[in-house]
Amino acid sequence: MNDIDIESLKGIANQLRIHSISATTAAGSGHPTSCCSAADVVAALFFGHMRYDAKNPHYYNNDRFILSKGHAAPLLYAAWAETGLFPVSDLLKLRTFGSNLEGHPTPRLPFVDVATGSLGQGLSVGAGMALAARLDKLDYNTFVLLGDGELAEGSVWEAASFAGIYKLNNLIAIVDANRLGQSQATAFGHNVGVYAERFEAFGWRVEVVDGHDIEEIVEVLGGIGLDDKPLVIIAKTYKGAGVSFLQDKEGWHGKPLSTEEAAKAIAELQPTAKSGAGVVIPAPNHLPEPNNPAPAGYPPINYKIGDKVATREAYGNALARIAEVDPRVVAMDGDTKNSTYAEKFFNKFPARFIECFIAEQNMVGVATGCGTREKVPFASTFACFFTRAADQIRVAGISQANLKLAGSHAGVSIGEDGPSQMALEDVALMRAIAGSTVLYPCDAVGTEKLVEQMAQHRGICYLRTARPKTPVIYNNDEAFPIGGAKVLRQNAGDKVTIIAAGVTVYEALKAADALKNEGIGITVVDAYSIKPLGKKEILAAAHKTHNAVITVEDHYAEGGLGDAVAGDVSADGIKVHKLAVTSLPRSGKPEELLAHHGIDAAAIVKKVKSL
Amino acid sequence: MNDIDIESLKGIANQLRIHSISATTAAGSGHPTSCCSAADVVAALFFGHMRYDAKNPHYYNNDRFILSKGHAAPLLYAAWAETGLFPVSDLLKLRTFGSNLEGHPTPRLPFVDVATGSLGQGLSVGAGMALAARLDKLDYNTFVLLGDGELAEGSVWEAASFAGIYKLNNLIAIVDANRLGQSQATAFGHNVGVYAERFEAFGWRVEVVDGHDIEEIVEVLGGIGLDDKPLVIIAKTYKGAGVSFLQDKEGWHGKPLSTEEAAKAIAELQPTAKSGAGVVIPAPNHLPEPNNPAPAGYPPINYKIGDKVATREAYGNALARIAEVDPRVVAMDGDTKNSTYAEKFFNKFPARFIECFIAEQNMVGVATGCGTREKVPFASTFACFFTRAADQIRVAGISQANLKLAGSHAGVSIGEDGPSQMALEDVALMRAIAGSTVLYPCDAVGTEKLVEQMAQHRGICYLRTARPKTPVIYNNDEAFPIGGAKVLRQNAGDKVTIIAAGVTVYEALKAADALKNEGIGITVVDAYSIKPLGKKEILAAAHKTHNAVITVEDHYAEGGLGDAVAGDVSADGIKVHKLAVTSLPRSGKPEELLAHHGIDAAAIVKKVKSL
Repeated sequence: MNDIDIESLKGIANQLRIHSISATTAAGSGHPTSCCSAADVVAALFFGHMRYDAKNPHYYNNDRFILSKGHAAPLLYAAWAETGLFPVSDLLKLRTFGSNLEGHPTPRLPFVDVATGSLGQGLSVGAGMALAARLDKLDYNTFVLLGDGELAEGSVWEAASFAGIYKLNNLIAIVDANRLGQSQATAFGHNVGVYAERFEAFGWRVEVVDGHDIEEIVEVLGGIGLDDKPLVIIAKTYKGAGVSFLQDKEGWHGKPLSTEEAAKAIAELQPTAKSGAGVVIPAPNHLPEPNNPAPAGYPPINYKIGDKVATREAYGNALARIAEVDPRVVAMDGDTKNSTYAEKFFNKFPARFIECFIAEQNMVGVATGCGTREKVPFASTFACFFTRAADQIRVAGISQANLKLAGSHAGVSIGEDGPSQMALEDVALMRAIAGSTVLYPCDAVGTEKLVEQMAQHRGICYLRTARPKTPVIYNNDEAFPIGGAKVLRQNAGDKVTIIAAGVTVYEALKAADALKNEGIGITVVDAYSIKPLGKKEILAAAHKTHNAVITVEDHYAEGGLGDAVAGDVSADGIKVHKLAVTSLPRSGKPEELLAHHGIDAAAIVKKVKSL
Repeated sequence: MNDIDIESLKGIANQLRIHSISATTAAGSGHPTSCCSAADVVAALFFGHMRYDAKNPHYYNNDRFILSKGHAAPLLYAAWAETGLFPVSDLLKLRTFGSNLEGHPTPRLPFVDVATGSLGQGLSVGAGMALAARLDKLDYNTFVLLGDGELAEGSVWEAASFAGIYKLNNLIAIVDANRLGQSQATAFGHNVGVYAERFEAFGWRVEVVDGHDIEEIVEVLGGIGLDDKPLVIIAKTYKGAGVSFLQDKEGWHGKPLSTEEAAKAIAELQPTAKSGAGVVIPAPNHLPEPNNPAPAGYPPINYKIGDKVATREAYGNALARIAEVDPRVVAMDGDTKNSTYAEKFFNKFPARFIECFIAEQNMVGVATGCGTREKVPFASTFACFFTRAADQIRVAGISQANLKLAGSHAGVSIGEDGPSQMALEDVALMRAIAGSTVLYPCDAVGTEKLVEQMAQHRGICYLRTARPKTPVIYNNDEAFPIGGAKVLRQNAGDKVTIIAAGVTVYEALKAADALKNEGIGITVVDAYSIKPLGKKEILAAAHKTHNAVITVEDHYAEGGLGDAVAGDVSADGIKVHKLAVTSLPRSGKPEELLAHHGIDAAAIVKKVKSL
């Protein structure tokens, strides 16, 4: 501790405050007072405690820092500017269109691993990073700075419980308890004992400090890793700290100072401010770099045409298979591994399997965190339960995260369990995620090949699988490129093109057989890649059937396959007729439900005849 | 306590077990062991403690019961059958297509207020009901039965914190701590002290009981309301309790017994089983019925054409205005009331305003709960943050809840705050909710009128509002029916129909002006009702422009306005060209972002010319 110059850190904290105020005043928007409260903590971390190579923010054994309270972005930018990574003059470009110094942090910046700004998500991501450190035998610590307001988010407590269970003593949460939320005081104000009790009950070691006493902050940081619990430092702070007319005052959330106010504030801070330049930042230990190359190929698959295998089971087979040759693959489960068949992976690779229990938000956050550390994380649960993590997935899109999600039990074809267990909106949700890929295979071969594609493709990929067993229809050597589609039936004179995916492919094939007996030919396309859509194949098929298309999907009519096709090819003059689930389902046998909702073979036959 | 016959309750518990086993065996699926663990608790509640009119499950002062662990549905059904509400023989119709006794409870049944089955949601709904009881001066209690596995869900802790803050001592949580999850033991097993500590830290009074000791259960139930805290009863139980070969055994989750196994189990239970028929259920107190009629009309609005008013502000105005004449209206906020302008309601009606802090899942659950008690709940936050509650909204759809959501700050037009604060997938998400209505006004008049429509319409309504101030373009007496659209510009010889909504309406109007100067006429339609879409108006306009349509939206290209229009009218031969946000945005000025993403007037002009 002796080599840390406390007086310097105090000066740096004020320098960070000045930068935060200047930048937000220049931008005309932002959250200067939320920066001021955390400035001492950030100064202590970045210029005293954390071990990292400031010239190389991506260095694999650098301590990680996540600004979960992302609205304090100017403070983070100020800290990195003061390390010398980029000129401090750049800070005045905050929030301008040409700058990567955005209103809330995004990984467009080399020192940001994940986007923040939707509160309560950072701790899960940090837990994923802390777990990855263990898997990679690295000794970096992961620090997550949270606001007190965001402790109301349940996702924080999912992460807290998880970190406690896994005894992640390389994960450190710091709560900037500045008492004031956006529109009013927080529920507990400066009664920080409430937070202390909660974290203790969730398995954490708790230190409560004066968040403006750098000596105290540095001292408790010295206790990291002393026992087997994650550590939370609850820093009692004041919003706007350091500036007389801002400190602890309501009505200043998310407001920049006027030029005059800024000058006045800076005049108060300047006398004790000090640049971070020249401060020697502790270097990380040089441990062996994790060596996890992508595999050159995968073990073969061996299905027989006609074998009945649920796509969810093929997912489990695929995960266990590709993991044999790809040590980057890890898997997360939400206590559904016996239903999603992720247990096939668990049985083979228990050390790379992370049981997240029934906490889907945290599961996705942990997976996202692992993804930032060059793992290839596959998280699986019932497709409908990924909806619980919709915001985490949205933000993962902004993070351009490498994240693989496999949702099982999609659609009414699950049958008796009823509507709460049926994903009927998942495709709409997943299509609308920035940069996402949405895949929906109908058989085991397609599933296996698409899991390979997911592992190879950098980005968010969603795989939709079904509960019922369905026959294998593809040969083992069939290729399933992302963005493709398969023409399963096509003859000259076909009247209409049926575009199906997943279970409805079989209904379309049955309809084709039935119509053939009546002398009516239809084209059947398996649109296994919903985003990007196999537009080329679909257009080509549709043009041959006089631009007449029927889509059929086990999903609500909004935002799914039908809308995807219509949205993509309507401009080309294709007439798209949608068959989809248009009313609230109920329990029943899968075939009863497919019939009731008009997405079975009979409904397709009827629709074809009506055209 | 003396008048409760403990021996009878023990017998009834076994009767409920028998029914649960019989029904799931008949169905061939279901969760009998999850029923057996909670049978004693449910018997004690339904036949000893709870006050309700069993012939009239909707009676306004009945105690409420939410089965948050919805997979134990057969137990709930058995209890109500034993009260005499319907024949016990109906229980054997469990999970069949013709029966309302579904795999998980839905409000198709008169004694179910909200659908459950997506774990961790019941406590928030219960908190909403408990709050509604206070508002209505009723003395019913709300009981929520949770599993131990679902305590991993963060939404439970959002609700727990909320109930603690609001001191809801008319809310009782019972945790059926049966130790076993779906695919393995829970993280804490029978170490129920962990749960006790957590609830205590979240402001609850905690009682730990042997969940199979009915005397103990009844005794702690007698302590409800003794202090000002909500009460949680942590019942230590065994999964499959009461049947020797099921009790506390792994591998039995979600598995029905074979006919032989069922017979063996029933043989063990039968000797001590007892029907609930004839048990006198305590009657509720007869307090004055809340008299909250829908209003005959609303106070007038008074905007001037050209006034610049953000739609989010008009939302606040509308909420405060309609609440003057509609006492059913209550509002929930996620600490954003100064941004969403819900504070205008708060300032006028603080007693009907519920600050939920930064916990959107719970906010939606509380609103849903209030809705079941005949309130008209309006919950508001930034549109992007409703994504956090996507699963609660999905399940509210299954509940056919009366729920009003207002999401502000939609789209890239928010500008500098950056992508984490921009809702660009909200329309996709909300369209895909069963039975939802999705509204997106462009001016203050439209917003005010649509808020009136939302209050009158029973169901889930989503209102999308924007951050920037936009001019009023409609007269105060303009009507905005759900499912309509407005033709703003139309002349003979128009080349194409532009379909816009929200901020892009103004871009379309600017484009029309610019093109008019070049002698090119375009039709402009304000599609303020995205679901249901104003299909009639859109088709009529499109047919007049040779079926050429351009949609333009401040939303991702997937699942939004463009897909809605294409999906609805492509079959009619309309060619829909989509302008939408197709790449990840960044911080910048609103006009820079609209231009960069090709959804401003210039982009519309360019697209029109290209056709």
